[in-house]
Parts: sequence; C-alpha cells; structure tokens
Amino acid sequence: MLKKILMLMIVVNGLIISQALKSPDGRLEFDFMMSKGGIPYYTLKLDKEYVIKESALGIMIKDDPGFIDELAIVSTQNSNFDETWQPVLGEQKEIRNNYNQFTVTLQNIDTKKEMSIVFRLFNDGLGFRYEFPKMENQRYFTIMGEKTEFRLTGDHKTFWIPGDFDSNEYPYMTSKLSEVDAEKGQGFFEISTRRIIAHNAVQTPLMMKSDNGVYINIFEAAVTNYPVMHLLVDKSEFSLKTAFAPDAVGNIAYMQAPCSTPWRTIIVSKKAENILTSRMVLNLNEPSKISDVSWIKGQKYVGIWWELHVNKSSWNYSDINNIKLGEIDWSKVKPNGRHGATTERTKYYIDFAAKNGFAGVLVEGWNVGWEDWFGNWKENVFDFVTPYPDFDVKELQRYAASKGVKLIMHHETSASATNYERRLDEAFRFMKDNGYDAVKTGYVGRIIPRGEMHDGQWMVSHYFRVAEKAAQYKIMVNSHESSRPTGQSRTWPNWISAEAARGNEFNGWSRGNPPEHETILPFTRIMGGGMDYTPGIFQTKMDYYTTGSKFQVHTTLVKQLALYVTMYSPLQMAADLPENYERFPDAFQFIKDVAVDWDDTEVLSAEPGDYLLIARKAKGINEWFIGGITDENEREMEIAFDFLPKGTSFTAKFYMDGDGASWDENPMLYKIETKTVTSESKIKVKLARSGGVAISIK
Amino acid sequence: MLKKILMLMIVVNGLIISQALKSPDGRLEFDFMMSKGGIPYYTLKLDKEYVIKESALGIMIKDDPGFIDELAIVSTQNSNFDETWQPVLGEQKEIRNNYNQFTVTLQNIDTKKEMSIVFRLFNDGLGFRYEFPKMENQRYFTIMGEKTEFRLTGDHKTFWIPGDFDSNEYPYMTSKLSEVDAEKGQGFFEISTRRIIAHNAVQTPLMMKSDNGVYINIFEAAVTNYPVMHLLVDKSEFSLKTAFAPDAVGNIAYMQAPCSTPWRTIIVSKKAENILTSRMVLNLNEPSKISDVSWIKGQKYVGIWWELHVNKSSWNYSDINNIKLGEIDWSKVKPNGRHGATTERTKYYIDFAAKNGFAGVLVEGWNVGWEDWFGNWKENVFDFVTPYPDFDVKELQRYAASKGVKLIMHHETSASATNYERRLDEAFRFMKDNGYDAVKTGYVGRIIPRGEMHDGQWMVSHYFRVAEKAAQYKIMVNSHESSRPTGQSRTWPNWISAEAARGNEFNGWSRGNPPEHETILPFTRIMGGGMDYTPGIFQTKMDYYTTGSKFQVHTTLVKQLALYVTMYSPLQMAADLPENYERFPDAFQFIKDVAVDWDDTEVLSAEPGDYLLIARKAKGINEWFIGGITDENEREMEIAFDFLPKGTSFTAKFYMDGDGASWDENPMLYKIETKTVTSESKIKVKLARSGGVAISIK
Repeated sequence: MLKKILMLMIVVNGLIISQALKSPDGRLEFDFMMSKGGIPYYTLKLDKEYVIKESALGIMIKDDPGFIDELAIVSTQNSNFDETWQPVLGEQKEIRNNYNQFTVTLQNIDTKKEMSIVFRLFNDGLGFRYEFPKMENQRYFTIMGEKTEFRLTGDHKTFWIPGDFDSNEYPYMTSKLSEVDAEKGQGFFEISTRRIIAHNAVQTPLMMKSDNGVYINIFEAAVTNYPVMHLLVDKSEFSLKTAFAPDAVGNIAYMQAPCSTPWRTIIVSKKAENILTSRMVLNLNEPSKISDVSWIKGQKYVGIWWELHVNKSSWNYSDINNIKLGEIDWSKVKPNGRHGATTERTKYYIDFAAKNGFAGVLVEGWNVGWEDWFGNWKENVFDFVTPYPDFDVKELQRYAASKGVKLIMHHETSASATNYERRLDEAFRFMKDNGYDAVKTGYVGRIIPRGEMHDGQWMVSHYFRVAEKAAQYKIMVNSHESSRPTGQSRTWPNWISAEAARGNEFNGWSRGNPPEHETILPFTRIMGGGMDYTPGIFQTKMDYYTTGSKFQVHTTLVKQLALYVTMYSPLQMAADLPENYERFPDAFQFIKDVAVDWDDTEVLSAEPGDYLLIARKAKGINEWFIGGITDENEREMEIAFDFLPKGTSFTAKFYMDGDGASWDENPMLYKIETKTVTSESKIKVKLARSGGVAISIK
Repeated sequence: MLKKILMLMIVVNGLIISQALKSPDGRLEFDFMMSKGGIPYYTLKLDKEYVIKESALGIMIKDDPGFIDELAIVSTQNSNFDETWQPVLGEQKEIRNNYNQFTVTLQNIDTKKEMSIVFRLFNDGLGFRYEFPKMENQRYFTIMGEKTEFRLTGDHKTFWIPGDFDSNEYPYMTSKLSEVDAEKGQGFFEISTRRIIAHNAVQTPLMMKSDNGVYINIFEAAVTNYPVMHLLVDKSEFSLKTAFAPDAVGNIAYMQAPCSTPWRTIIVSKKAENILTSRMVLNLNEPSKISDVSWIKGQKYVGIWWELHVNKSSWNYSDINNIKLGEIDWSKVKPNGRHGATTERTKYYIDFAAKNGFAGVLVEGWNVGWEDWFGNWKENVFDFVTPYPDFDVKELQRYAASKGVKLIMHHETSASATNYERRLDEAFRFMKDNGYDAVKTGYVGRIIPRGEMHDGQWMVSHYFRVAEKAAQYKIMVNSHESSRPTGQSRTWPNWISAEAARGNEFNGWSRGNPPEHETILPFTRIMGGGMDYTPGIFQTKMDYYTTGSKFQVHTTLVKQLALYVTMYSPLQMAADLPENYERFPDAFQFIKDVAVDWDDTEVLSAEPGDYLLIARKAKGINEWFIGGITDENEREMEIAFDFLPKGTSFTAKFYMDGDGASWDENPMLYKIETKTVTSESKIKVKLARSGGVAISIK
C-alpha cells in the first residue's frame, strides 16, 4: 500500500507531492508533500499564485520522538462535504459549510505511533488540524509544541498586536512583517497583566495584505482544551511559527487519545470584504451541544459600568482595604458615598431600560470585595453571592421583573479561576434564585492556579467549563479578559459574546483606541465571534466628568452608532449613561432601533485600518441597518442599496457626522435625515475624521 | 521605652538576653535574646540543661528585607493562661491548656514593618509562632522561608523519614542525626509520588533522644494556609533548619495581614511516656469552629478495602482503559468479573457490620474511573457521583438503613484537587441524598494544580476547604495521602482522622512496615491527631491469597489487636475480610469490644522504636482497654493495673501471643485468658517478636 502511493508522487523543490486538492470553486489549490527525511509540508495557492509556500507540519511530544520527521504515509483519504446549518444567533440565518477534505495518516517509523493531518479546503481558505488515534502506546501524552509553519510570499502589510500569553487588550499596529516589534508595546501602562512572548511575537487572528492585493488571515478554530496559538515572525524569511503558553511546569498541552489539536486556518481572498463574510471558523466548530436553545436570546443592555470607568462612581462600597472574605460585618463598614451599584441607582437604570426597550441591566460592583480586589494575586477575592449592604438583591429582582427587565450578573473573578470554579455552582444557583439568566465574567489580573496563564490550556478549558456549567443552568455567558473566541458560539451558543480585545473602556482612562482601531477588529478579534465592545458613548470627551482630563473616545458620536452594525455581537451594550442618552434622544433612537441578530450581512466595502461599510438585515423582519466607519481620515462613501428587495421603496433614516465634526473637534456634532431609498439608490455620504454613518431602513 | 528594656538586658555568649521565662512547673526555661546585629535568638532548657542552644529566628519576605536582622525590639508582653477544655473526641475527656506566654514585637529598622514572636512555655514544651500585624505598608506579602533554627546539644538518636514534599508514606529510619541520609530511601518503589527535598531533609514530627536520656519532639501546630514544615539537618552542628514546599512559581506562602505562621513546637521530657501524653499540639490550635457537634461520632467500620489490596478483587469494574469521564456508556462495558464494590458484596459487609456492631461500611471502587485512574497526571479522573453499573446506590442506602449501618463514602481524588473542588458541592449533596455522613478522601498521585505539591500552602488550604465544606454538610472527613494533621481536630472536629503516614496496606503488597513501625508512629505522626492506620489484619501472610507471595504483615495477630489501643484514632477500621474474622471469632471479640473515644489515657511504658504499653478508659463507661506492642524483639511486660479504681475487682480478658508465635513464624497463634484484676494487680505478659498484648476490662 505504501509503495503504491509513493509511486504516484511527483517531486517539486525536493519535496514529493503526494496530494493536490482544489477548493469547490477551483480557485484555491492545496498541495501536501513529504520530504525525503519524512517531514510533511503543505502549500496553498490562490488563482495559481502561492499564498503559503512549502511549510512544515509536525507535533513535538514530551519524552517521545513525536511527529516531526522520519514519518511515513500509512494511508490517505479524500472526501467532500456540503451542508447548510442555522446558527442560534448570527450574522446570517443560514451558513453553508462546503469543503473538499484530504486526510493523511502518518506513522513515526521508529515508534510506530500514528497521527493524521486533516485538511479542509473551502472556497474561502484552508483549515487543518492534527488528530491522534488511540493506540496501545498512544493514550496519554504531552504536546510540547508544533512545527506548523506559515511561509508567506513576501513582506506583507500586517495588522498585529504583541504576542502575549496574558492579554489581548492592545491597540493594533500596522507595519510590514519585517517591522514587527512586539516589545514596542511594553510601555503600555494601561495593560496591567501582560506576558509578552518575544520581540517577534504576534497574536492571531493575524490580518495581512500582500503587495499584490491578496488578503490573508491566519487564525484557528475550535480551541478547546489546548492553548491559544500565537505566532513568531521570521522577519527575513517572512515565515510564521507557532508559540503556545506553557503551563506551570513548562508543558504545552496534556492530551488523551483519541484527540486532536484545534484547526489552523488560513482565510484568503483578493477582496477584503470576503475575509469578513468568511464563516470558515464557525464551520470548523462542532454543532451545538445544547439541544434546547430557546432560552438563548440576543439582546441590548445598559448598565452601571461606564460611570465606573469615568470615575463618576466606584465599584467599591467603602474605602477600607485588606478585605478578608467572610470576616467583615459590612453593615458596620462606613460607605464612601461614591458606590455605583446601589439599589436606587440600579432602579434608575431599570427604569431607563424599560422605557427604551432594553432587555438587560448589567450591574458591576454589586458584591463585596472590590476594596482591594486587584494586584495582590489573592485567591479569595469575591464570593459571587454577597451583595454590598446598599444593593438589595430581592427588591431589585422584584422591581426588574415588574418592569419586564432582566438584571445581568457580574462575576469578576480577579483571574482567580480556582476560587471561581469552587464557588460556581453556588454562584449560578444564586443567579437563578434571583432572576438572572446572563453573566458577564471577568479575568483581570494574574491567573490562579499560579503559574498558569490566560491563554494556556488550563484556562482555555476553564472558560469552556464555565460555559458548559452555565448551559446546565440555562445561563448566557459574556466573557471579558478571556482568551479570544474561535467560533465556539456554534458549539456553545450560550457563550453569547466576549470581549477578549481592547474594548471601548480604554477610551475612558487611557490613551485609548486610535481611530483605525474599530476598522481592524472585524478582521482580527471578531473573526472568532461576537465582541462585547460596549459602543454607544455619546459624551466622547472625559473633561465633561473630570476637569482637565485629556481622555476621550477617538470617534465621533455617529461612529459610535455605526459600531452597532460594524462590530458584530448578539449582545450589545448601550454603554453611555442614561443621562447622556437623554441629552440626545434623536441620535439615541438608532441604538433603540438597531437589531443584534441577523438574517443576512453584506459587507459593502472594507479595507482593514481604513474603513468599513456593512449592511445587515434584521432577523425575521424587513429592517436593515447600515454602519459605515472611517479611520483618522475623512472619507466619502457611496452606498449602493442594491441589497434591498427590488421594486419597493423604504424609509431610511441617515445618522451622519455634522458639518465640521471630527473625532477630536466637535465629535458630538451630527445630523439626521430621512430619505426614501430603493434597491436602485446610490447615495453618497461624507464621514468626518474618525466619523461614521448609521442608517436604519424600515 | 526601647531604652528601658535594653537597660535590663544581660549579655551571654555575645547575645543580649531580653527575657527569661519559666514553665508553670518551673522545670523548663526559655530565653529570648537579640544579637548586636538585631537578630533574634532563643534557647530552651530542661532542669537547667540546654535542650535547644542559641537558635536564630526570622522570616524572609519576597522583595523586602523581611525580618531577618536589623531588628529592634518595639515592645514585650508577658501573660499566662490556664484553662481546661473538652475535645469532641479524644484520648482524654478534659485537656488542660496551661502556659506562660512571652510576646516580643520587633521592627525592621529600615522598613519600620513589625512582626511579633509569641512564645508559649508549657510544662511539656515550647510553642512559638510569628505574627504579622496589619500596617499601612504590610498588607499582602509573600513569605520565602524561615530562619527558624533548632540547635540541638548533640548527635541525638533520631527517628526519621525522608523530607519529601509529596509523600509521608515512608518507613522510619533510626540513626544518629549525623547519619541521616534521606536519599537512602530513593529506591522505595512502593512510593509512587515522591519529592525528596535533599539528602539531609527529614519530616516532622521529628522524634529524638539525647545521649543523656532526654526525649525531644520537634513539630508544629495549627498548620493552616501555610506549607508543612520539613527540616534540614546540619550533621556537624546538630542543628535543624526549616524547609517548605514552594508553589508552582517558587514562592512559599502568600500572606494577608493580620496573620501568623503555624506554631513551631518542641516537646521535651526525660520520660518517653510524657511525649505521648503531651496535648500541646492540640492546645495550640483554635477552639472548634463547629458549634453543633452532635453529629460527630467516633466509630469502628469495616469495608471493601483490604480485599482490594490483597488482589482478591479490583477497584476497577472492567479492563478497558483510556476513560474519558462522561463519554462511556457503562451499561455496555464488559465487566472484568473481579470488581469488588458490587451491590451484593457490599450487602455482605453490611450484614457483617450489623451483626458485629460496626457503625460504618467503607466501599472503595464504587464509582467510575478506576480503569486508568493512576499515573497520567490527568485532571478529570473521577466525578464522585457516578456508580459502576453493579453498584446500586439507592438499594444499598435502603439496605444499610434497614440494618442500622451507614455506608462510608470514598472520594479518591487522584490528587487532582482542582477537579475535586469544582465537583465538591455536587459530591457532598450526592452523599447527603444517599445517606452518607462520612467520607474517606484520597490524594494518590501528582497534584493538580500542576506545580503544586501535597505539602504546599495551596494543598494545605485545600484540605481545610474540604473539611470546612464538609462541616457545612455535616460530613466527617478521614483524609488519606493528605499532609499530616497538626492538631486541627480541635478546630474542625469533623476532620475525624487521617492517614498521612505509612499505613497497614503497605504490608499487603510491598516490603511492608518493619516490626518497630507501630512503636514509632505515636511519637511522630500521631502527635498531630488520630491516624486511620487500618489495623486488625488477622490473616497476616499474603501467600494465603497468592501462592508464593512473600508479602506479609510484620506483626503477630495479637499485635494487630493491641494497635486499636496504641494507635489512637476515633475512627478505627477492622480492616481484614469478614471471612477472616469468622475464622477467629474469639480474637475478633476484642475488636468488637474496644472503644474509640476515651475518658482517659495512661501511657504505662514506652520507648520509641522498642515498645509501647498504653491503657485507656472508654468514654462514659467503666471499661478499660490495654494495648502493648513490641518491636522485632520478644519482650516481657509487667502491667500494673493501678489506673483502675481502688477497691473493686474487674474481669480482664487477656489476648496474648501464643507460645512459639512470632511475626515471621506462627504469627496467628494466640491465647485468650480471663483474669480478675484490681488496682493492686501486677501481671507479667510475654510478647513474641513483633507481638503484642491486648486486654479488655469490664
């Protein structure tokens, strides 16, 4: 059998091609090769041009030769697949999952252990993973790294953040691959917990553009029970190698066969728009493990949150410090008079939510422990069930229910995952007993178990444990400071959203997010799933709260509206204070109107780092919403409404930057115009510097 | 103030004596001294002779000068204390806690941080600990080690096991201090998970005897949220220094002021018997944190356990391997036909327990996961709630209740503490739902969180977390492979017993426990609390089960009886198979009769490594039990019955080694004689080589 296969092989560049595969549309071509030394390689071409040159594959295993070289092909298999499935919540109602598959089973000629590599070639890119069958001598093993390479064809333009095992909250840098310098970011005072891997390390999704206009996105899918993949850039060869967070004792991943790695993904297109409409990452995840999904609902929410970030109120109830959980009689503690999460203030938000049609109210700082929650690498910070004395859980449950609003729970873990796990059952029971059905989790700080990191195998498994247990309780999860999503919302649709990138709050108290930030996130972070970016900040300059403050949101007010369309998330916050929305009720109308779950999405035009224009149709109803944003440059956009049904006229409400508006000068100037549009309409709109346009169509 | 104190000081050996303190009986003398460099020292004398020579004190703190030198005395305080308290379960009904106390508060002259050292001088020894007040600049800090020394006066005879952060299951070595070699034990194949610290490392309690006949026991009390103290021997200076298990990142203990270290203890006497009757370790623990203790009961139990160790049946239900928890349909798995924990076999033990007055039946191997539970450093091994298909939890609950017997739960964690903690609530609810009120926990293997160790701070805290949560559920805990008790049964009386040393099971499948083993354990391991040694093996030679086996219990049958008295535990197993007890019903009568909770205890004679003779009065009734054991030498013991009330005659049943019996030849030979005794009686008894004597008196 082995011989027969070998006879069919063709030798190219000293490598023996054993298999060529084409995408369903024929434009992508994948080749699998073996070197004479038994090392597996692959290439990827688009329209006959290389995207990935001969790149090695392989897995390093502890105390074992692993699967690096001296490998022989045992068997190969070809198949194809075509299905259409419906996500519970999503950017489109139906998703097609169509690929040609090639599986090669390799054997280490010394150990006789086997590993398969499965390649799936879609029209939008390539996904592949390593699979390990259970064998008598292959049951439990420890992966120490991957030989996986992505050898690029040139010094591409790259949108990157530093490779860091503990934080993904960096602003993006745009540079040539050869100019990547992760440690340039070391001075970022606003990122408290970081573990930059190396000067040449970058995170994934890594978005690139070649000189000849090919967009390449390297990422991964279905990262469960495995550390997050980071990349090391060879700046002269333009090749990328993998890096993974080691655990407390230096190992990468504990495996039990049969098992597999996550999928490595390469999404490629000559059009930037197609990168954003790729559903490859979702397709490479498993179908839902939750059978009854009726309780999982997209929603908009408000909450006691931004007022904490602008220092109008505080998470902590008092100014004591040195809390020992369970040892303080809170009724005797002197309040600091600035506590945000009071019963009264929460009712104010509930009233506002009820009046404006928001389903949820998030309250941060409701539970004891915030006085010295940060920076002590302390295990028992929060118990998730004890409210401060001025937060009446039962009364608020009653009040919210009477208004048809749901409170959203907040579980800041302070990155003490051991503490959270041991209290999780009790915390979730407390939620259900008190009418909560969604939780925002947080992982700020150094991880406990000590020695573990946010992006390591143990923590990745932790996030899934939380999602799975939440599903048992019918609780939706919105994780912050977790590792970034890799399409797992297909499998665990109750993991409804995540932050896992630099969110809007950085604009409140740091140098913030540069104007191009939101034009890059959909090409990077959001490739893996919805992001709880918390848009909608109308009061963009912070000197409104603090005299002399230089902090500000780096967009216009209208761009904040457009983000509800451009930043996909089935869970969207109206993040500003109710008081500020009441100052601008006409602009606020867009946030009230905009949908969060969609029948269809069209990316009308896009260029990472520059601009985005996206139109989406609300799920189940004839309403469309358009968001357009630009970077630091003003820009004219022509919007073609040909996504609308033909032959019907619609009323479109245009929310546009006011004349003379820009992110730094007059950011809150806007104008609203109502126009009639048909599928024939083409309308030009001017966007201010870091401005936007938002359109609702009924 | 400082000056005034300094003026009173006397200079000895270059050290300035700032305080002398005597024990209530005046025989022990403690001195506290400061060197000119600001280093604190202490000494301890018995009858004016040094027991501990000038020994340094101090604490090393991460990124801080800590409290090592350059310390100045801020204040001192003297006090005394005398109370009598009642343990829930114990060796005596009332315990006197009487000491003179000296507290010195020291300040680092650079940092101005303060630390107190509290010394308590009892008639039986010295206890001291370090205390850290909360200060503006002293809230959270990390201890990196102690400077604590124990400088001995000579090359004492020492009973030691290797210092090891992961195991305390070694047989004892007896040697001069200068001859300690911990790595002599490296070849002990029977200890699977070990982390020997250094060639000169020993564990505590460390039992010593000086050339002039002073017995010295160095140990600690109230080890909570702090790693276990091990000792490093300076073989030329005969001094001991401390060693603690580092955590995954190399730190020793995370502290939050106000806080303190455990108590360091030195128990000292010219009579070995007094070491055993010292209650100093208990006295240095906090009073009970459980107010209603009515549900905490001492008890004897039988169980499906020894038959597993002698390979008569198996923990595992099948011979499949590579279990993925929750992914196996056990009803379709082929049983191996050797499974011990079947419904039928459990009923057999329940019947036996009911017939013979045992309160509990332990069942190991009842739950899925045993097929490949060991050796893979795997996190999710057991779920603690899923029985094998041949173990009917509900039927056994009904059956046990109908017989007035309680099943004892078994939670082997495979040392995956993270997995256990996250399932603990559910596991305890399962227990209560199914009529269990006691659990035997186990920690066999390498600890998870990876990088932590059995004796490190995180795990020590874990054992207490389990005990505390168990108390919430009114569950009693018997921990195996945990760190050894340090008197915490006073504070958490539901932590009823522990193994935490080399138990009887080693006799079933290894070179076993040498004849002297049980004469040393009361001077070492049992100084901290009751030990679940699982005595009562009648069928001493394993070739009874396996032809040609050389394994055997290294005692006579009668010595196994005597262990119920000499090895204190309020939870005692009759460890042998019911079938074996039925072969020797007259000898078995002693196990049926013997108490587990006591009004009083008298150590009639004792020498570590040689022999023990202990008499105890059962709690609340006029019954006495005597146990005498000897090492590898045969021995004649004269028993004086003067502990009995005067003027009354009692019937005493003597269980004695048969003529010609010895541990290696005819170990199961015994004779039983009934005699009348009074407080005047003195009766001589012959003990075989590794034999014993057991007496019940009514």
